[in-house]
Amino acid sequence: MSFSIPRGTQDILPGESEKWQIIEAKAHDLCRRYNYREIRTPIFEQTALFARGVGDTTDIVQKEMYEFKDRGGRSLTLRPEGTAPVVRSYVEQKMHGWVNQPVKLYYTGPMFRYERPQSGRMRQFVQFGVEALGSADPAVDAEVIALAMEFYKELGLHNLKLIINSLGDKESRESHRSALVNHFEPRIDEFCSDCQARLDKNPLRILDCKVDRDHELMTNAPSILDYLNEESREYFKNVQTFLEEMEIDYEIDARLVRGLDYYNNTAFEIMIDGEGFGAITTLAGGGRYNGLVEDIGGPETPGIGFALSIERLLMALEVQGVDLMQEHDDLDVYIAALGEKARNKVPALLHQLRAAGFSADADYMDKKMKGQMKAANRQQAKYVLILGDDELAENKINVKNMEDGTQSLEPLENVKEKLMTGVTEKGEK
Amino acid sequence: MSFSIPRGTQDILPGESEKWQIIEAKAHDLCRRYNYREIRTPIFEQTALFARGVGDTTDIVQKEMYEFKDRGGRSLTLRPEGTAPVVRSYVEQKMHGWVNQPVKLYYTGPMFRYERPQSGRMRQFVQFGVEALGSADPAVDAEVIALAMEFYKELGLHNLKLIINSLGDKESRESHRSALVNHFEPRIDEFCSDCQARLDKNPLRILDCKVDRDHELMTNAPSILDYLNEESREYFKNVQTFLEEMEIDYEIDARLVRGLDYYNNTAFEIMIDGEGFGAITTLAGGGRYNGLVEDIGGPETPGIGFALSIERLLMALEVQGVDLMQEHDDLDVYIAALGEKARNKVPALLHQLRAAGFSADADYMDKKMKGQMKAANRQQAKYVLILGDDELAENKINVKNMEDGTQSLEPLENVKEKLMTGVTEKGEK
Repeated sequence: MSFSIPRGTQDILPGESEKWQIIEAKAHDLCRRYNYREIRTPIFEQTALFARGVGDTTDIVQKEMYEFKDRGGRSLTLRPEGTAPVVRSYVEQKMHGWVNQPVKLYYTGPMFRYERPQSGRMRQFVQFGVEALGSADPAVDAEVIALAMEFYKELGLHNLKLIINSLGDKESRESHRSALVNHFEPRIDEFCSDCQARLDKNPLRILDCKVDRDHELMTNAPSILDYLNEESREYFKNVQTFLEEMEIDYEIDARLVRGLDYYNNTAFEIMIDGEGFGAITTLAGGGRYNGLVEDIGGPETPGIGFALSIERLLMALEVQGVDLMQEHDDLDVYIAALGEKARNKVPALLHQLRAAGFSADADYMDKKMKGQMKAANRQQAKYVLILGDDELAENKINVKNMEDGTQSLEPLENVKEKLMTGVTEKGEK
Repeated sequence: MSFSIPRGTQDILPGESEKWQIIEAKAHDLCRRYNYREIRTPIFEQTALFARGVGDTTDIVQKEMYEFKDRGGRSLTLRPEGTAPVVRSYVEQKMHGWVNQPVKLYYTGPMFRYERPQSGRMRQFVQFGVEALGSADPAVDAEVIALAMEFYKELGLHNLKLIINSLGDKESRESHRSALVNHFEPRIDEFCSDCQARLDKNPLRILDCKVDRDHELMTNAPSILDYLNEESREYFKNVQTFLEEMEIDYEIDARLVRGLDYYNNTAFEIMIDGEGFGAITTLAGGGRYNGLVEDIGGPETPGIGFALSIERLLMALEVQGVDLMQEHDDLDVYIAALGEKARNKVPALLHQLRAAGFSADADYMDKKMKGQMKAANRQQAKYVLILGDDELAENKINVKNMEDGTQSLEPLENVKEKLMTGVTEKGEK
């Protein structure tokens, strides 16, 4: 009698497992620099969590879950994705009361979806994802996107394409929803039965349909971008500005709606441009989900995150001929900013510092200077960069050494060098 | 509506997750030095694998498995342990045909047993384990034991107690089995129903019974050690000698039979001596399973391994007040030995080199010198230590630099220093 591996799963053997270790080490290192910390949730959860947290009109919940009863009769489900479990933990562990806000978490681990196995799509697959909970600052959106892009970049991938969109806030979504219903209703009988059901429940998801993708009503469907209210438009614009300051190229695609019900405002995907992939070109996807924490029983809490598949990353590395190589805990730098212009400069500065190897963070809670300094102290930052509008006008920044309390005004372009020396000196002591 | 975590599982949160990372990094680093390589098998397997591979008379299979049917009607089970899946993979991937033998593998990951949750016993728990497949050399037994002991030691645990036993080969087990049946049969009606069933199926497991542990027939039950045949006695003696040479203290306990059916010859447990544990004193367990690969459909293949729980390790570290700290791919050293005395010296030498931080390995396949040199080359060893009976008589060893081909005869006590300089020089180039 011999046994075979379950369909849609794989053994990762020596020679391949080292690549996984390198990728995981990169995720750990990158998250350290971005000041995200690891959370590990169980492999299974109560089934109702996913019906609620992922959305019971989704394919995942309707068709793809590994659901079973344990010996005590409880309905459990192998997690099909990582966000709902993290949010369940956030609520259960009352993380909204933690001192450091937003709560920035990451995870890596296996997920399970009962799909037809095909190249790059396994029934057990591993995701790396981050979730930032507790801040509605568009700079967090840009940070999360930057982290995902940097992950691929540092691993050696090129020809990446970042697609962004805004699904708007509740008001914007409702006016767009009405427009979609008006658009599709007269000819809904030409669509698949799934789409007919979606018209009432969630017409946005019609745009996501694989069956009816070529129907003429699809191409001229009302665009969400035409229905964004003032606030949502402003929010989306800010995200774009931050990305530009980080020199991260992006494209806007109004058809990007994501398969899950709980997204609002920013949605994004990272695609890979190039040969050898067939239909599989999306590497990572994420977005903002300001209603999810409340849906799962917590207080009203903004949130944003992404998830990406390690299997697809490995395929991409293989196609681009990238050989993985190896590289390498307090916060090195905390940026405290005062004034609107200064605050707006922070994401790009953080991005540069992190790209240079420092662990760096800043405030996303609209704290005053005193609160920001407290946060820096609590996180034992070695240096605090103090940035105000006046200094910014002169392209300078105050660099405060938190160990000896000395402070100096430095030209912005010298900051990295200054920190490099300081952090290395400390490291060598 | 709010959701709670499934019973018997836990969220590992920031502050705690870093400890897991350190422990996993230690496992990776230690296995690198010991030349074990990582394998990752799926979270679930065909249910029949565990009935066969773990044994259908065990509590695990009879009472504790998370079994379910997928949407295709297949009976799957969340893995309750790691050995059967690794052996399934060994057979399916035909690892017996791999060039480097024995195949030395390790894994870390979640396992699942539906037990009453209690301190240190979760329904989802994480195991670190190693399996060495393809060699029946008692030096492998000692190596596997040493790796487990070193893991705890390097993490800072003390007051460890290593318990070993031999369950003998097939012949020895059969004569012991007859003696057990003769011993228990006349009064078997005084035992629990489980034990009554075990009398026919697997009387050895009566000794493992928690219900009848205090019955007077337990204390004077026939000891396996009195039924070992010549070959099994010799094997056990060799394992003990290797441990002594590694300066690893041990105790022999003839009552150590392990809960799983497939063990033979060496069985071992690592216990922790000290307060604060209550009933939970076993940290790790392992042993030899020369029949398992064949049971699972592969060729006759000797194997040995251990598994340990990370949750219990964390409890032990906590109780002993150990603060985890941090430490760090070719083989540094391969030891090629010729002659019986020289070969017997190898395990202790390997142990010293590995304890000093080198990745080091040697032959366990009884290869001739030519074969050993080939193995060293294949694994790109930086140095080969060539040890023969004549050199050993003078307490010397040949150190061959594989890069420039130079060779020198060095006193044994200088070898570590010599390698340290060489490996460091290379590392700095």
